[in-house]
Amino acid sequence: MTTTAAQAPFTPPELAELRHSIDNIDTAVLHLLAERFKCTRKVGELKARLDLPPADPAREAEQIARLRALAVSARLDPEFAEKFLNFLVTEVIRHHEILRLERPAASEPRHERQA
Amino acid sequence: MTTTAAQAPFTPPELAELRHSIDNIDTAVLHLLAERFKCTRKVGELKARLDLPPADPAREAEQIARLRALAVSARLDPEFAEKFLNFLVTEVIRHHEILRLERPAASEPRHERQA
Repeated sequence: MTTTAAQAPFTPPELAELRHSIDNIDTAVLHLLAERFKCTRKVGELKARLDLPPADPAREAEQIARLRALAVSARLDPEFAEKFLNFLVTEVIRHHEILRLERPAASEPRHERQA
Repeated sequence: MTTTAAQAPFTPPELAELRHSIDNIDTAVLHLLAERFKCTRKVGELKARLDLPPADPAREAEQIARLRALAVSARLDPEFAEKFLNFLVTEVIRHHEILRLERPAASEPRHERQA
């Protein structure tokens, strides 16, 4: 009731519709990423338990090649796919660092770069 | 046939299973992002056609608030949700710049920061 024209400018219906789709996609992606972090957390714990090295360059190279190829079929820039993976890896590292700080040193999981 | 132990170290089945889930999630997310870029491309074209300003700070603030709240319910760090949105916005800007370069100056769409 207190909304003024300056606060709420007119949004054309076509724009509102596109924004609704963008919001739906963002909701789906965010929840998928929550599942992904559950998986990478388990990977970190598993590697710590089995005393496996945190980084696995062969796996990382495989992931990059796979995502770049998928990007082409999805009509996305392969550079974007690689940047996206790097963005997620950075976040996985941050999660593992938080996890390490939360745990007693004895059961400290080794840091895992990728997954 | 030329694979050596050094090239293909043993992957525990539990790790292979988690990696398969991560790959499935990445495939889903990548394709959703391809759809998202289709939407933001249409937003850019629509704004150019209707002569709407490229940036919309109110919409951006709304998106950030929405994604931060969703992150909490998905048990994700709200900071991550905001970083993720910024990552996508940066890519949307890059797409629009490419689009602008590909088009004749007369029909050049105005650059849209958000969506």
